[in-house]
Amino acid sequence: MSEAARGRPRDARIDEAVLAATRDLLATEGFVGTTVQAVARAAGVGASAIYRRWPSRLELIATAIGQDLDRLDVRPTGDLRADVRAFVGGYLELFDSPVARAGLPGILAASRGEGDEVRGLTRRVGQGVRPAFRAVLAAAPPGSVDPAVDPDTVFDVLIGAALYRSFIHPFTGRRGGADDVTDLLLRALRP
Amino acid sequence: MSEAARGRPRDARIDEAVLAATRDLLATEGFVGTTVQAVARAAGVGASAIYRRWPSRLELIATAIGQDLDRLDVRPTGDLRADVRAFVGGYLELFDSPVARAGLPGILAASRGEGDEVRGLTRRVGQGVRPAFRAVLAAAPPGSVDPAVDPDTVFDVLIGAALYRSFIHPFTGRRGGADDVTDLLLRALRP
Repeated sequence: MSEAARGRPRDARIDEAVLAATRDLLATEGFVGTTVQAVARAAGVGASAIYRRWPSRLELIATAIGQDLDRLDVRPTGDLRADVRAFVGGYLELFDSPVARAGLPGILAASRGEGDEVRGLTRRVGQGVRPAFRAVLAAAPPGSVDPAVDPDTVFDVLIGAALYRSFIHPFTGRRGGADDVTDLLLRALRP
Repeated sequence: MSEAARGRPRDARIDEAVLAATRDLLATEGFVGTTVQAVARAAGVGASAIYRRWPSRLELIATAIGQDLDRLDVRPTGDLRADVRAFVGGYLELFDSPVARAGLPGILAASRGEGDEVRGLTRRVGQGVRPAFRAVLAAAPPGSVDPAVDPDTVFDVLIGAALYRSFIHPFTGRRGGADDVTDLLLRALRP
């Protein structure tokens, strides 16, 4: 639906208040407690104002989480290890945030057959950050990255390792953070 | 609670019937539709028989999924690439099964502060299979695996890549399966 079809321009302050309330509720009440009614109450708007903007609770939650996951911003420094570690550490931190921890599995669990916004979220996990990762590899010192390696495969594996470390690893009793994953990725990148 | 405290021995056939019904419902009805009442109806037992065995719906679902995730059985053949690919492909297949796809994110979403069985599931993802992975690395041809690499870190990254590929990658429009992840892991293992 176009803005005109909605009959009046959207108020960006309401969008932001609703998304902030959604993130707060995810962090404090978890996925189940983050209902449209609860978000409306916390944001001080009517439920209808929310449904005008997001067709479902899932798409609202997906948008709120997606904003966080798009925030990772790493610029190449020429120090390949430091740059790759910044990506690994950045995703660990993002996935470990109370909002992502409460919301991401819930979205994945509920997203069977859901709308475009939910698919948009899963598409966004890492997609907006891929160009920065390719830039980091391109800025690496000569001889440290084999041009035969596909940067997108490395990035898939990087995000996967962060997902595993964030959602499963804490329960295994094994220690480990960004350093050993970074070292493994650098080994894989070697010519 | 010990078997004796339950007052009578457990009937293993009921356990199996309940777990099979749980898996069937996860695959056909999804996480939300897999309630204790629905499982009881499908298995032809009373809900009380289920609650005598599992204190909650989540722990029942965790047990049903955990059985599947423990099934991966790879024996070393001496062909390192083939063996590592068997692990990657095996986890892709396990995570792609309708049961895991419906149940695993639901468990992760709901497991904040839940009981031991749920933590047991997340602990089991890969834990029972680690010794086999170490055996595969130990059986690799001389010179193909750097002894300085921690097999458990490689295995974390392997499972993470499979998680990412199964739950997020299908939405990104990128192609990719077990081969490129396997190649990347072999590159990382090189001395």
